Amino acid sequence: MRKISESTVRRLSVYLGLLEEFARLGKATVSSDEMAQRGHTTPAQVRKDLSFFGSFGKRGLGYDVVELSDRLRDILGLGRTYRVTVIGAGKIGSALVQYREFGERGFHIVSVYDNDEAKVGRSWNGVEVRDVRQLESDLRTEPVDIAILAIPPHVAQQTMDLLVGIGVKAVLNFAPIRLSHPDEVTVQNVNMALELETLSYALRNS
Amino acid sequence: MRKISESTVRRLSVYLGLLEEFARLGKATVSSDEMAQRGHTTPAQVRKDLSFFGSFGKRGLGYDVVELSDRLRDILGLGRTYRVTVIGAGKIGSALVQYREFGERGFHIVSVYDNDEAKVGRSWNGVEVRDVRQLESDLRTEPVDIAILAIPPHVAQQTMDLLVGIGVKAVLNFAPIRLSHPDEVTVQNVNMALELETLSYALRNS
Repeated sequence: MRKISESTVRRLSVYLGLLEEFARLGKATVSSDEMAQRGHTTPAQVRKDLSFFGSFGKRGLGYDVVELSDRLRDILGLGRTYRVTVIGAGKIGSALVQYREFGERGFHIVSVYDNDEAKVGRSWNGVEVRDVRQLESDLRTEPVDIAILAIPPHVAQQTMDLLVGIGVKAVLNFAPIRLSHPDEVTVQNVNMALELETLSYALRNS
Repeated sequence: MRKISESTVRRLSVYLGLLEEFARLGKATVSSDEMAQRGHTTPAQVRKDLSFFGSFGKRGLGYDVVELSDRLRDILGLGRTYRVTVIGAGKIGSALVQYREFGERGFHIVSVYDNDEAKVGRSWNGVEVRDVRQLESDLRTEPVDIAILAIPPHVAQQTMDLLVGIGVKAVLNFAPIRLSHPDEVTVQNVNMALELETLSYALRNS
């Protein structure tokens, strides 16, 4: 399968969410027009995105909701579960641990780390907050698939380096800083200021 | 100026962050190579993105850090301040109100709303939590530029409709649901599960 762009992956993820909604409503088939309208894109874009992975739709009948959902889950790597650790037990870390959609999608938060002794040992949604000094030895004995960085920017790079050294291959970074990392590690940045900047751009140019 | 894509806007926002970092380090000029390396893109992409807005770089000298930052701030609509309201005083809302970068970028959180009486009246980082039933009348007398939705999915669409009716033109949505809205309103979705799905896609295809 050829490599597809990040923006295509994001749209596939949106399509999957829509298909799951359609499934809950009891719909058996869906057209590219319906997908496009609900996903705020064009029917041509929907057909193009899905054509990467072979032919799904039947002309005039649309896509089979269950079949297409299964295929997208497979493409997105959602056919398995992932072990996730959250580093940083602040507000963002706390919000993430309680985020129900993660578990439903197969992302299981198995541990939370912090350097604040007042937080270490507490239980959060059934997950115990551990001392960040244990991070390296813990991950060496019980590896995770994904690490989420919800820590201040000045300690983010050193933590990233530690994770790379341990062999973590996927990181979701909430610290407002670009992290250096080897190409074989995938880093996804969530930057709230950046989200607002796409809105200010839209407001300026509307 | 021609309309540019959302992914270009996001890269411009990343470049601005990098330039501000270079400025703090006292650098006067920067090359497209340095920008590309730190921004995890290619020099050709950097030059292409910046060429949308006229010629900045001097061959062999690179870009002037201060000049380019100012220009990007202007392009992104950051030459002014924005009034922002947060709807939902849960974990995500709480994390957002304390997010220092917002204020530094000119995004001022002026109000927080919730329907939980135990939260209404409390002060959060100097911002009082108000009763959501006041939302409509408040926004009609004191308009905001941007509304952030940090509420459960089952109340998100009705709140969106209310905001559209009041004339809010930009919404940052944290509810894990696609919202229907008129084209003249810009909605930016932050979906944590979607971020993890781009990572699971990368892990599956690495």
